[in-house]
Amino acid sequence: MGKPRTATIFTSPQDAALAFYTAFESKDVDAMMATWAEDEDIVCVHPGGPRLVGYDAVRTSWERIFAGAGRVSFRIEQAVTIETVGLAVQSVVEQIKAGDASAQASALATNVFMRTPSGWRMVCHHASAAPPMAETEKKGPLH
Amino acid sequence: MGKPRTATIFTSPQDAALAFYTAFESKDVDAMMATWAEDEDIVCVHPGGPRLVGYDAVRTSWERIFAGAGRVSFRIEQAVTIETVGLAVQSVVEQIKAGDASAQASALATNVFMRTPSGWRMVCHHASAAPPMAETEKKGPLH
Repeated sequence: MGKPRTATIFTSPQDAALAFYTAFESKDVDAMMATWAEDEDIVCVHPGGPRLVGYDAVRTSWERIFAGAGRVSFRIEQAVTIETVGLAVQSVVEQIKAGDASAQASALATNVFMRTPSGWRMVCHHASAAPPMAETEKKGPLH
Repeated sequence: MGKPRTATIFTSPQDAALAFYTAFESKDVDAMMATWAEDEDIVCVHPGGPRLVGYDAVRTSWERIFAGAGRVSFRIEQAVTIETVGLAVQSVVEQIKAGDASAQASALATNVFMRTPSGWRMVCHHASAAPPMAETEKKGPLH
């Protein structure tokens, strides 16, 4: 029967994206991996990290990240989405806060979701640090 | 009639990807932009740079990059592709050499192509620097 499956069915890429960031915030590896396709061709790039390919490598990376002491919370901004029948790409700006809100950073993420027999699942997450001026360029000088 | 169009039709995501890197190497802005969809939702992230959205912002960024003195050449490695009828995602490792081959770097890129009435076109390019250990992790210790 292979590995146990969750019953989670995401009926849209947006649902899968929400579950992805919720699992990230709650440091829940099983919930995180339930948002990914069980596929050897899934790709994950954490900011500054190497490219990880395949379900096991991706899962291990989340286990390591979630084993760390801190918690983070996300505000997802400026989503640009391109969606077709079977595949959807979402580009977002991630505003990331440490649990105690003392540290803040932003990252750029390209998230790709595929419609599988088990609903929409993530097949690619590519995140990289946003440069400090990105927000300023977008919003102009502070008022 | 709007802006002039090129007659270039890419019949596969792979053709569009090849044209993208060829245009990059030859610093040809028109050839580069002929690989992109003429769309306000295209997204481009150059390594370490802000997120650029829309045809004009993307074009301007290539004009700036190509105005620089140097030339680069690419070796594209370890492509992982997920392709559906209308959208294709290609994750690659870019081995980048300066024209005189004295400098070398590697980057990770997520390239997304969409099937448009004008053939396959790029809709998202997200590139970020690869960490120095990425290649070692992939290949194991040197023999």
